[in-house]
Amino acid sequence: MVNAVYAQSGGVTSVINASALGVYRKIIDNKDTIENLFIGINGINGIAENNLIILNSQDIDKINLLEFTPSSAFGSCRKKLSLNDEGYLKKIFDTFKKNNIRYFFYNGGNDSMDTANLIYEYSKKIKFDLKVIGIPKTIDNDLCFTDHTPGYGSTAKYLAISALEGSIDVKSMCYDSTRIFILETMGRHAGWLTASTALARLNSDFGPHIILIPERAFNKERFLMKVKKTLSEYGYCSIAVSEGIKDEQNNFLSDLGYNDNFGNTQLGFVGKTLSTILMKELGEKSHVAIPDYLQRSGRHISSLCDVKEAIKAGEYAVEYALKGINGKMVTFKRISNKPYEITFDYIDLNMIANQTKFIPDEYITEDGMDVNEKFIEYAKPLIKGESYPEYKNGIPLYYKL
Amino acid sequence: MVNAVYAQSGGVTSVINASALGVYRKIIDNKDTIENLFIGINGINGIAENNLIILNSQDIDKINLLEFTPSSAFGSCRKKLSLNDEGYLKKIFDTFKKNNIRYFFYNGGNDSMDTANLIYEYSKKIKFDLKVIGIPKTIDNDLCFTDHTPGYGSTAKYLAISALEGSIDVKSMCYDSTRIFILETMGRHAGWLTASTALARLNSDFGPHIILIPERAFNKERFLMKVKKTLSEYGYCSIAVSEGIKDEQNNFLSDLGYNDNFGNTQLGFVGKTLSTILMKELGEKSHVAIPDYLQRSGRHISSLCDVKEAIKAGEYAVEYALKGINGKMVTFKRISNKPYEITFDYIDLNMIANQTKFIPDEYITEDGMDVNEKFIEYAKPLIKGESYPEYKNGIPLYYKL
Repeated sequence: MVNAVYAQSGGVTSVINASALGVYRKIIDNKDTIENLFIGINGINGIAENNLIILNSQDIDKINLLEFTPSSAFGSCRKKLSLNDEGYLKKIFDTFKKNNIRYFFYNGGNDSMDTANLIYEYSKKIKFDLKVIGIPKTIDNDLCFTDHTPGYGSTAKYLAISALEGSIDVKSMCYDSTRIFILETMGRHAGWLTASTALARLNSDFGPHIILIPERAFNKERFLMKVKKTLSEYGYCSIAVSEGIKDEQNNFLSDLGYNDNFGNTQLGFVGKTLSTILMKELGEKSHVAIPDYLQRSGRHISSLCDVKEAIKAGEYAVEYALKGINGKMVTFKRISNKPYEITFDYIDLNMIANQTKFIPDEYITEDGMDVNEKFIEYAKPLIKGESYPEYKNGIPLYYKL
Repeated sequence: MVNAVYAQSGGVTSVINASALGVYRKIIDNKDTIENLFIGINGINGIAENNLIILNSQDIDKINLLEFTPSSAFGSCRKKLSLNDEGYLKKIFDTFKKNNIRYFFYNGGNDSMDTANLIYEYSKKIKFDLKVIGIPKTIDNDLCFTDHTPGYGSTAKYLAISALEGSIDVKSMCYDSTRIFILETMGRHAGWLTASTALARLNSDFGPHIILIPERAFNKERFLMKVKKTLSEYGYCSIAVSEGIKDEQNNFLSDLGYNDNFGNTQLGFVGKTLSTILMKELGEKSHVAIPDYLQRSGRHISSLCDVKEAIKAGEYAVEYALKGINGKMVTFKRISNKPYEITFDYIDLNMIANQTKFIPDEYITEDGMDVNEKFIEYAKPLIKGESYPEYKNGIPLYYKL
């Protein structure tokens, strides 16, 4: 009998704990092979520090709450590991040895897959028998070699609903008040999240009218022209913008000096930048919503498709490891769109690290300020179904460590 | 047989259309007295311009969607009327005469009740037989003479859930990344919305740790001290802040020059102001969420209590008018808290106008940066129950005019 360890890494999602639940369930199914499921507290740090809990010793009702709990229930981390960190790597393997851990499951994005790969490489180097499997997770949907990532569907749903509700709001006020609404989304490099606001138009045509993604350079004149055209056509204008859009000189828009009056050039508040431009150039007041963390931890309205797939991603990770597969990350393959159907596969961890999947050109409209029907066909199944948490006192019941 | 007209005014809520549904249903119950329910498009403007629809001629399935549709389904307005606007008032009464309208229901906040009152006064002046009843509505909960207002419970629920989810998020990242989360809420004068984030703590203790309301002057030193104390105690700090907080010299915090690098001194982005202070004074990075419109149109998660009461407020408005009551606004009276129970009453329209109900001192903690158990007891019943809209394609189905 040996043990396994699971940890979470990088920016969180609404469904990363659902993957933890998948890992747990598959290990319970195989308790003749794996005795305990250890959890690293605060990602890989908890493993290096031997700061672990045994999940299967917890109350099952509590464990089941993981399906409905957003963010990282066990603590995440931003630790970047390198092969030169031999001291740190040694501490990790000390924990493995001390606790007879032979399976390592790491749940994260591309940086985290790099970490998992280093641990895999090191295990080979020191000839320590360890199976390493990565479980994908990122709201950004920017991992290569997988159709999409767990976490994306739920944030896409949150943002599409928010774009719909914000559009209805500004429409209702536009007769003699504010006429422009701006929704700022996460997604520093790729525009998948911003693009998902187009799904707000699936049942109606309230908006958004303009979608600004990092895949296309921001051109102020063409942007203002489209705003003016939309205002004259509909009486209001709803805009979704990625925090990561850049101008034609490749500068982040939120770095242009519009926001950094304290010399603080961190990204974010690009919605405010646009708002200022609209006031200055068109004399139009606008309202700006910046959901920030709320979009990635908004578990009160998650995609049922996403939740189910996140659980399955965890289950497949264990299944692959038990089959002897090693140094891989679980991937999704779409085999049919109508009806929507995926299968699971895997890819070398070192293929995933440090690569970004952008929105393909064929999904983007000619004017570069919207996405087309091809994107809708791709993204629509991923927000399907509603998964609601249980409530007590009018507030969701979430897992607490 | 006579007719009635209903219109919506001021900033919108998630449940204002539920009140419209209540008006509609009660009028249908009394169709021997009132033949048609006209709706003014874009508030009072639609009445002045004779821009009306007849709601009872629409499809009933569509009408029933009003219960689940946020924002103003018929368009709202910011029109401020005065008795000197005789030309405008005449146009309104021309519409009343032309369409044989003898009942006027106006759904809004205190400015809107002022408008309703002027129309009531003018009807007496010109001896036009008209019943005028105001239906309360504001997410701000700042109307006097009513226990609370329809719309508050749903935004309070949205913000409490958001504060919970944002707190869980920053907690999970605090080991080696961002340690402070700031949630900026609406509420320019009164802190009811910001205070509602305290309800996030009903089932757990994730946060928020600091709640900054306009009822108390912002003191930078004491604020920073509480942040530092919270960070050392919990490892992270979750903050809710009202857009309307002022410093000890009575200046809006978002007017202090922190944000207006374009000479634009509009309120908002106070979260960014705090974020800048925290970076400058403590060297702490923070994340800021600004839900803006999303908090008042977030119908995907509304309080069932609020929705039911909003419908009833509309029903009572019609009931009162049919009893001959005139020039009044519907009010709520809480007669019991355990179990929660309210009755309906009414008050003179001219009592409501231009007054603000602030959070009473007895609800605020001694340090001025939180609310206490008395506030929780007051607000807790208002967020009870979940009212979910119907979904199609993963997106809510909302009413469209």
